[in-house]
Amino acid sequence: MRVLGVDPGLTRCGLGVVEGGIGQPLRMVAVGVVRTPPGDDPAERLLSLQTEIDDWMHAHEPDAVAVERVFAKANIKGIMGTAQASAVPMLAAARRGLPLALHTPSEVKAAVTGNGRADKAQVTSMVTRILRLQVAPRPADAADALALAICHVWRGGAHDRIAQAVAAQQARAGARR
Amino acid sequence: MRVLGVDPGLTRCGLGVVEGGIGQPLRMVAVGVVRTPPGDDPAERLLSLQTEIDDWMHAHEPDAVAVERVFAKANIKGIMGTAQASAVPMLAAARRGLPLALHTPSEVKAAVTGNGRADKAQVTSMVTRILRLQVAPRPADAADALALAICHVWRGGAHDRIAQAVAAQQARAGARR
Repeated sequence: MRVLGVDPGLTRCGLGVVEGGIGQPLRMVAVGVVRTPPGDDPAERLLSLQTEIDDWMHAHEPDAVAVERVFAKANIKGIMGTAQASAVPMLAAARRGLPLALHTPSEVKAAVTGNGRADKAQVTSMVTRILRLQVAPRPADAADALALAICHVWRGGAHDRIAQAVAAQQARAGARR
Repeated sequence: MRVLGVDPGLTRCGLGVVEGGIGQPLRMVAVGVVRTPPGDDPAERLLSLQTEIDDWMHAHEPDAVAVERVFAKANIKGIMGTAQASAVPMLAAARRGLPLALHTPSEVKAAVTGNGRADKAQVTSMVTRILRLQVAPRPADAADALALAICHVWRGGAHDRIAQAVAAQQARAGARR
């Protein structure tokens, strides 16, 4: 299973691709950050982001996309751009018929560090360890994108295992009938 | 000048196309509302909206796109979907190289009614009168989309007139040199 994680933003959008499954070691396929100049036209910034994400989809062919769920924070102006930016990977996934999940920051932190209130340094440190990287991914947006992808593999895997268990149970029930 | 106005939203997105210019009567070309089911996957909803807006762009070939600028209100959950929905016409305009403007609700109200704090009924009533429609456009999202397009023609026209005056001034200055 190969997952593209996206930490959405217009000024900095983190992208990370992780491959692996439950009980298998995870591997980092790619990591990066897309930046668009704050002074540019917002529509042009969205289009630049779309072009980059389309390139990543084409280059890495993920099986699923995981995007950070955007919440309102103190910085309302920034949050609107972030919400608009989050539409780009959502559209990219839907256009390709790929499963898309939105994970909250605390779900992601809990998945990679065991603590839903972990700080950025802890997340980066655990991402570096889980993916056995020589160098910690920088900036934090890049590490967050990898954390989202890791979270998705692990949570998605859990969902799959439950679905498999249910299917197996139903198959057994069917066989007994 | 033909303008597509978009009142963004996931549950209801108003679309209105208006044609005309400064000092000319305005004409309504099309009006409608795109609805996507609140229970559906958010990425699928964005994709449905994108498909509809692309169809409108293709059918009506606007020269410019005007989108309501999204602000944070009390309903934070709804505002995130609205912000994501607003990315769709912004991307559609940028992809086609069309000029895009974001107008605030009070700019639109002031343009069509003369009062930046007009209510929905006043906006609908003035839109109906300006476009000489037999029937008031419904729902309010549809009337708002037409109001955005009207506002854009009038404000865009003003910008154009200033630009023309500056260009004429420069041409005269050049001729005197």
